Amino acid sequence: MDRQAIIDMGSNSFRLVVYGYEPERWWALIDEIREAVRVSEGMRESGRLQPEPMNRALHTAAVFAAFCRSAKVEKVDAIATSAIREAENRDELLEEVRRRAGLEVRVISGEEEARLGYLAIANSTTLADGHGVEIGGGSAQLTALEGRRLRDSISLPLGAVRVSEAFLPGDDAPGKAQKALRRHVEEQLEQAPWWPDGEGARLVGIGGTIRNLAAAAQKTLDMPDIDVGGFELSAEMLAELIDELASHPAPDRGSISGIKPDRGDVILGGALVLATFMERGGFEAVEVSEAGMREGAFFEKLLQGRDPPLFDDVRRASVVNLAHRFRTDDAHVDHVARLSLEMYDGLADAGLHQYGDEERELLWAACMLHDIGVAIDYDDHHRHSHYVILNSGLPGFSSRELVLIALIARYHRKGEPDASSLGDLAVRGDKARLRLLTGVIRLAEQLERSRDQIVAGVEVVVDNGAVRLATRTEGGDPSVPLWAARRNSDVLADAVGQPVEIA
Amino acid sequence: MDRQAIIDMGSNSFRLVVYGYEPERWWALIDEIREAVRVSEGMRESGRLQPEPMNRALHTAAVFAAFCRSAKVEKVDAIATSAIREAENRDELLEEVRRRAGLEVRVISGEEEARLGYLAIANSTTLADGHGVEIGGGSAQLTALEGRRLRDSISLPLGAVRVSEAFLPGDDAPGKAQKALRRHVEEQLEQAPWWPDGEGARLVGIGGTIRNLAAAAQKTLDMPDIDVGGFELSAEMLAELIDELASHPAPDRGSISGIKPDRGDVILGGALVLATFMERGGFEAVEVSEAGMREGAFFEKLLQGRDPPLFDDVRRASVVNLAHRFRTDDAHVDHVARLSLEMYDGLADAGLHQYGDEERELLWAACMLHDIGVAIDYDDHHRHSHYVILNSGLPGFSSRELVLIALIARYHRKGEPDASSLGDLAVRGDKARLRLLTGVIRLAEQLERSRDQIVAGVEVVVDNGAVRLATRTEGGDPSVPLWAARRNSDVLADAVGQPVEIA
Repeated sequence: MDRQAIIDMGSNSFRLVVYGYEPERWWALIDEIREAVRVSEGMRESGRLQPEPMNRALHTAAVFAAFCRSAKVEKVDAIATSAIREAENRDELLEEVRRRAGLEVRVISGEEEARLGYLAIANSTTLADGHGVEIGGGSAQLTALEGRRLRDSISLPLGAVRVSEAFLPGDDAPGKAQKALRRHVEEQLEQAPWWPDGEGARLVGIGGTIRNLAAAAQKTLDMPDIDVGGFELSAEMLAELIDELASHPAPDRGSISGIKPDRGDVILGGALVLATFMERGGFEAVEVSEAGMREGAFFEKLLQGRDPPLFDDVRRASVVNLAHRFRTDDAHVDHVARLSLEMYDGLADAGLHQYGDEERELLWAACMLHDIGVAIDYDDHHRHSHYVILNSGLPGFSSRELVLIALIARYHRKGEPDASSLGDLAVRGDKARLRLLTGVIRLAEQLERSRDQIVAGVEVVVDNGAVRLATRTEGGDPSVPLWAARRNSDVLADAVGQPVEIA
Repeated sequence: MDRQAIIDMGSNSFRLVVYGYEPERWWALIDEIREAVRVSEGMRESGRLQPEPMNRALHTAAVFAAFCRSAKVEKVDAIATSAIREAENRDELLEEVRRRAGLEVRVISGEEEARLGYLAIANSTTLADGHGVEIGGGSAQLTALEGRRLRDSISLPLGAVRVSEAFLPGDDAPGKAQKALRRHVEEQLEQAPWWPDGEGARLVGIGGTIRNLAAAAQKTLDMPDIDVGGFELSAEMLAELIDELASHPAPDRGSISGIKPDRGDVILGGALVLATFMERGGFEAVEVSEAGMREGAFFEKLLQGRDPPLFDDVRRASVVNLAHRFRTDDAHVDHVARLSLEMYDGLADAGLHQYGDEERELLWAACMLHDIGVAIDYDDHHRHSHYVILNSGLPGFSSRELVLIALIARYHRKGEPDASSLGDLAVRGDKARLRLLTGVIRLAEQLERSRDQIVAGVEVVVDNGAVRLATRTEGGDPSVPLWAARRNSDVLADAVGQPVEIA
């Protein structure tokens, strides 16, 4: 395993993250330390880092650097963003950090900050053409993507800490102050003439402010307790949250479910910035990614040699990454996927379902991941696969898709498919959708029950009101798959409304 | 990874299990096929295997054998027990199985069956001196252990299928029939004069009948949804279950929560056999193990070279096995354990707690396993460790101990320790117990925050109403551990009622 540390010295908090990876196999966050340094405190008036915040910054940088030395993480990229970038006396801090912590910090420009955010977005979502937004402590970055490339970007001095200090200094948030803040955001937006003027389509949001707002919105919904990656925060939900936040004095906002306590005093400011960006752009919702600048910096290293450093297919990369982290039996899961997709396509050709590419991809993902729960316990491993998928997350899939993939895996070998945990995430027909996809994977798993790829293919033949699955075997003895499949055709039969025979 | 298949041809069901293992590192069940063959059906009258059950047996054996060939599992041990053992025409079946399935089956004696059960008990529980009971479909095995060795054993024709057919043939279970069954068990018990006559102490139960009864009893309690391994089924709970089962006609008993549907018609018979064994022996409860004859057969191979083939310390073996399955960082977790135990002992010496060896071992186990949830996701990995521990299980620990270990891991880095999920498993003082153990592990984890064993030891000094933890470092830079520990001493301070300083 290789390791790469990223140290992110932001205006609100400093964070050390360590990624473990084997190139072309898997990567994962393996350690993290977060410290609410609030280095920008008091900078607004003077333009200078103040002694106390500087001390906190220096001390935290020293701890992070000591951690990397002690834990023998050799690759370390320390990055400072807006607060430090803009401070008149930043060199003083950087010199101390170099001298006393032995840490070389690179201060990146707003443009570079936006570019790293873009790399996070393009590597953690399916966004190809659309816009990105990141609200940090000191600055906010806006981006425009075209064909998965960065077309435009800007960094504006609209971070949550900064606007809160400037416009919402007291405990209350009077309507007038909120309006002034929004007007200020609109004025700043004039520097980005390429930001949509009401005709925006897809918008992806990254960074702690947006993650927190999404977490708070999730708590108000009936849905599984999953991470916010893939969640769609609608403009409507955001407006409700703003009302809710504004109705509490600043010190109480951190106790609202989903909001991090040490962000409570600046979250409303951040929410108002986001809401104004969305209104002006005409975006109905922001799709949340858990990735951020740190991941952007990491992806740049993980994918070095590619220009731009992007995964070819984010969804596929997420699924394969998770499968590899759990050392699945590649030959087996690939084959379950192959048989599933053959049946899926055959059933579609026969007019037995009307689902398309989206469901096909969910089915594929569930096939790749159906066995990962065995790492926990073979007994009930379908339940454990469900737990692992929900809790690991799959960047590039929406919350609803993630839950569906987890449910298909949940029911891949037993149990009556039950879509009710989708709750508010469900769309019309999800119950039937889950049933069909479960019916297919369950048969594919049994046709590959002996884990030897003996059933090489399966053809769907509709014959006199019955579905016949004609298996093609290659050498060997297909008695196990046939025996196993014949006792597992009931869910599919029910889904297509016809008896299913295995031949 | 090596693999070993065990095929268990019992009176009620046939089962193929596959264990994966790396000798001296880990082992785990990795595949399983169960088939309710009911080979003994109709044998009672004739003493012969009947044509239909024989066909089912042959077919299932052929499927299992084909599976092993296809999946390339080379080590296969096929074992037949009482029904086949006793059938006049067993050679007919065995010959067909050999010829048509290519499977060599060894028919084991009742004595050997009891011995394999003993190996399961001695390798999955802490029982050193006491008794064991297994209720199969055809026969029941009783054992007596002394110093972890098998002292006495017997196999009696008291399996659940057999007694149900003989005494409870109809849908109802009249009191008279139940009494006759119990009397029959008592008569049979006369063949085991060494079975306690009212003075029994510890009793361990294995096999599907007892597992099912325990699962049904668990459902009536407020406790986490965990496997039955380590659960104590009291004589009182068993009596209530018998009443409940007898109040339903046989075909409905399989729908009682916890009871496997295809066991429903014979579970009452099995329960009455167990209850009689317990009453006669004077056992207040039976401790349930998830292991059984199949594990016994597997342990014999895994631990070959040892005589008898036993783990030195079952609890330690369970914990280390689970840790290794999740590839924990051995140096790190060993060190967290060392620091935890040093603090635990130091606090005890200083009179700051009165806990003993049992709690010490739970603390050690939680230290070894605290990070296994990282495999799922670094975020919230304490929650995932809790899930994995609860669901993987730890043979040798009671249900309550398992939940406590999971809770200590759950709170090893954040959160207010909450023992309420213990529910009915809790004993007096568990809330305070969890708080003290959490306080210790949380500090030990932080003193090893840089994962480099820089804090080599810690001494507990009580000084003027405050606890001082004097750390001893070896080379390097202890700034990270000290920084991290100082902000994590509150739980321990609260547990011992004194401020805790890190020096």
